[in-house]
Amino acid sequence: MKNSTTYRVIYGDTDQMGVVYYANYLRWFELGRTEFLRAIGVPYGSIEKNGIYFPVIEVSCNYHKPAHFDDLIIIETILTSLGRASLTFSYELCRRESRELIATGWTKHACVNRAGQVAKMPPPIKAKLKEVILPAS
Amino acid sequence: MKNSTTYRVIYGDTDQMGVVYYANYLRWFELGRTEFLRAIGVPYGSIEKNGIYFPVIEVSCNYHKPAHFDDLIIIETILTSLGRASLTFSYELCRRESRELIATGWTKHACVNRAGQVAKMPPPIKAKLKEVILPAS
Amino acid sequence: MKNSTTYRVIYGDTDQMGVVYYANYLRWFELGRTEFLRAIGVPYGSIEKNGIYFPVIEVSCNYHKPAHFDDLIIIETILTSLGRASLTFSYELCRRESRELIATGWTKHACVNRAGQVAKMPPPIKAKLKEVILPAS
Amino acid sequence: MKNSTTYRVIYGDTDQMGVVYYANYLRWFELGRTEFLRAIGVPYGSIEKNGIYFPVIEVSCNYHKPAHFDDLIIIETILTSLGRASLTFSYELCRRESRELIATGWTKHACVNRAGQVAKMPPPIKAKLKEVILPAS
Repeated sequence: MKNSTTYRVIYGDTDQMGVVYYANYLRWFELGRTEFLRAIGVPYGSIEKNGIYFPVIEVSCNYHKPAHFDDLIIIETILTSLGRASLTFSYELCRRESRELIATGWTKHACVNRAGQVAKMPPPIKAKLKEVILPAS
Repeated sequence: MKNSTTYRVIYGDTDQMGVVYYANYLRWFELGRTEFLRAIGVPYGSIEKNGIYFPVIEVSCNYHKPAHFDDLIIIETILTSLGRASLTFSYELCRRESRELIATGWTKHACVNRAGQVAKMPPPIKAKLKEVILPAS
Repeated sequence: MKNSTTYRVIYGDTDQMGVVYYANYLRWFELGRTEFLRAIGVPYGSIEKNGIYFPVIEVSCNYHKPAHFDDLIIIETILTSLGRASLTFSYELCRRESRELIATGWTKHACVNRAGQVAKMPPPIKAKLKEVILPAS
Repeated sequence: MKNSTTYRVIYGDTDQMGVVYYANYLRWFELGRTEFLRAIGVPYGSIEKNGIYFPVIEVSCNYHKPAHFDDLIIIETILTSLGRASLTFSYELCRRESRELIATGWTKHACVNRAGQVAKMPPPIKAKLKEVILPAS
């Protein structure tokens, strides 16, 4: 299971180097995993309504090529691992027109309750996630 | 009562025109009013702890000169009006080194409770705010 | 001529009040006018390639209802006026599902050259823009 | 050589989990390295004026504790390695009041010219940087 979604770069995403500011890629990672979760029938909003949150505890990003204003970026997201109270998504970003690889990265998330304490993932959510794991290549 | 605080422009604030992206000025307005409230002894965090929020219901900004990376911006904030359940702050931003005026603007806020309903401002907060109103010139 | 485009609210757009941070609406205004210009055949990138820029010189926004995480926002943009070296866009944002009005606003832009000096708008661009003006109601 | 600078969390940095959005930590890393470079007498603006840029090519961040609105964050930055055309900064973020560790991370940068091509670092800059390297512990 791999989710693919797109994002059009706006002016506000760029910086004075004329390319997208590096922190904004993490917004695209978020967009990717939100659409991934929606696609498998577990929208993130429904997870939070159950009092469960997936805060990011680690992020890594490799910037291969700059992204520019008005580029259409394809964000491909997979779920690469699932623990008792954690999960990891991996991302590949490329420019749609040229198919160039822009960036790769991953985020590791804890599973916590409203109080911020580590919590076991609710079994129905865990079951759905288990079905769609795709180990990182 | 006029509060003055400073902010150093980072790379992430700029866009590919080589100047600060226009939405980021609203972050500076927020910084200005937060420091204003702290200075008069009513830090915004303490207001929220009482279940009161001041969401922005209207904003206006005039951009006079561009702000650049590494500029030190002076943010001057005054409280210009106070209603039963609303208040308005005005802002003047200038570049410290050159004293050039960068932007002026104002934000109008509602006073609401946790449920988002219009709420009367708590009397002790209202009293403090009333003392420091400075009508817009 | 009215352009309509959509944006899905991400987590990174929200703040601790549980709603979209007020500065982010200005990003949506930008998205709206960029898509407006693309739709009439004058993509903003092509304007900049001609050494012409449309920096924002004034913005106004009225916040009617909060926008939330995962809301699909419809951004409607019209061009309401056109001067010798300036132009004004107006925006209406609503929540797609409920059709509620979220915000309204406008941005006034100067027309400048690479050096940041006021410049006459290139006649072909001006001609296209003139055709699609829709005075503010 | 370790640089220490501070940042006060604003409302716009938070998200609906009531904590700082994870992408914003990368803005703080930028703040840290900009102040580091200023402190050693090589302000980043002066580097760019020489046609040299340090785009981020890799970032890693570990989130230990959430940061909240109005927290005063201490950003400690060191330069941990220096190559022919690359350099790496490491960061430690902690909450000033409680001295709790908030996050750690690092950024790897290329050294490129205006055209975005890998470039040898100018000798005077390289010399200054070499003096202040502090290998990661």
